[in-house]
Amino acid sequence: MILVDGAETDVISALDRGLAYGDGVFRTLAIQSGAPLQWRRQYAKLAADCAIVGIAPPAEPLLRDEVTRIAQAEQHCALKVIVTRGPGERGYRYDERTAAVRIVLSSPYPKYPRSYYDRGVRVRRCRLRLASQPALAGIKHLNRLENVLARAEWTDSETAEGLLLDNGDFVIGGTMSNLFIARSGTLITPDLGRCGVAGVTRDRVIDAASVHGVACTIGKITWSEVLGADEAFLVNSLAGVWPVSELEGTMLSTGPLVGSVRHWLAQDDDADLG
Amino acid sequence: MILVDGAETDVISALDRGLAYGDGVFRTLAIQSGAPLQWRRQYAKLAADCAIVGIAPPAEPLLRDEVTRIAQAEQHCALKVIVTRGPGERGYRYDERTAAVRIVLSSPYPKYPRSYYDRGVRVRRCRLRLASQPALAGIKHLNRLENVLARAEWTDSETAEGLLLDNGDFVIGGTMSNLFIARSGTLITPDLGRCGVAGVTRDRVIDAASVHGVACTIGKITWSEVLGADEAFLVNSLAGVWPVSELEGTMLSTGPLVGSVRHWLAQDDDADLG
Repeated sequence: MILVDGAETDVISALDRGLAYGDGVFRTLAIQSGAPLQWRRQYAKLAADCAIVGIAPPAEPLLRDEVTRIAQAEQHCALKVIVTRGPGERGYRYDERTAAVRIVLSSPYPKYPRSYYDRGVRVRRCRLRLASQPALAGIKHLNRLENVLARAEWTDSETAEGLLLDNGDFVIGGTMSNLFIARSGTLITPDLGRCGVAGVTRDRVIDAASVHGVACTIGKITWSEVLGADEAFLVNSLAGVWPVSELEGTMLSTGPLVGSVRHWLAQDDDADLG
Repeated sequence: MILVDGAETDVISALDRGLAYGDGVFRTLAIQSGAPLQWRRQYAKLAADCAIVGIAPPAEPLLRDEVTRIAQAEQHCALKVIVTRGPGERGYRYDERTAAVRIVLSSPYPKYPRSYYDRGVRVRRCRLRLASQPALAGIKHLNRLENVLARAEWTDSETAEGLLLDNGDFVIGGTMSNLFIARSGTLITPDLGRCGVAGVTRDRVIDAASVHGVACTIGKITWSEVLGADEAFLVNSLAGVWPVSELEGTMLSTGPLVGSVRHWLAQDDDADLG
């Protein structure tokens, strides 16, 4: 199902600036048992990202109604919320009076192999380097050609994800996931101040670590540090937590901190659903 | 008028990857007397840009028919040709079998003040720095949030354009135009190997300079070099050639090379129209 500004349809204006310039932001979230998971966090991030690019975010109750409508109809699916700057005349300049356009759409929940959770995933190193753009770093905007090109670097189904580095040789994250590594019982996740996307699940892990007394720092991580980590795992809102078991041929250990993280998130989801 | 895959409409699929990820490329060209200007160059660049991002470009006769259809109906307008990777399932991975989507749409020809050509334009320096991404540099793709943010830095109508620098403090070009400077009778235009968009008019100036025996080099240009240039001018396919007369308060001289360049381009357009 697709709702555009609340109306069921499968099209948008060909003049939408989301198409013309990628002028908008989005979130992807899980719908389970007819309810959106982590809605408050997802909306807060969407609104914050809107503000960074100067789009007036849709009101929370309005967007929640639309999300809930699809959630109740589909029960179990992946949901994408896109907010664009709306239709525009030709040219980069935008009219601040134009209302943002809301696109809420469902997709089948992705089916990942059981082994991704039990044994971990094989991960490659992408050749593409992420560009450094502090003005857009961390936000989930519609300019995602880097992710598209990086994901096109492999087609084998044995590789679950690719890790991206920046121009300074630091690891930033997966094409569609955030990275954590564990070292001596502490967690480290890449600094996303210059590139990358800060997902809701990344925030949840950082917060949960704090609650559970596990140190978690945000910092620079080199490729060697990932290879030499006690554990490494990838997170996103649909996949949950994937331990990395193989990285470009190097085998990594897959416990025990990843189990704790998964447990924390499950507890948090239960609380979220009430 | 808007044609999507040849059919008159004003909408596109809400699942188009052009919207989801800015996964596509475009060109903007002038329609005059019912004909597209510089079509061969525009198509060649569009096809080359498609190839860089792995989209199979639409066949030239097919796209030319659609462009001509709008050109003949409108006679005098701005024309935008967008080619996206087409609709897709959720996720960055694309299906190579999906046919690209063609969107051809017209807008009123922009009306610029006569003084922009006679006396030159006032130009500002944008605060936003362009990110360095060699994999996408030069190509006119749909990931244009940097341009949108840069263009939002000013709203006064006296400023015609903003110049963008990269992280290395080199000037790359305008938000919607390419830059040339003149020094001792030679032309220099910024190297676009790490960021920026290589417009068709930029190529035409480079080629025309060669034909007319004026040295034109592609290189690194600092802000001081623009300020200290004998002349500076901006080009694009709709605006033509704008001499820069004022740059952040510094007055620049506006002749005589800019006049030659304008003359070369007019001759070339006449030849193009046959």
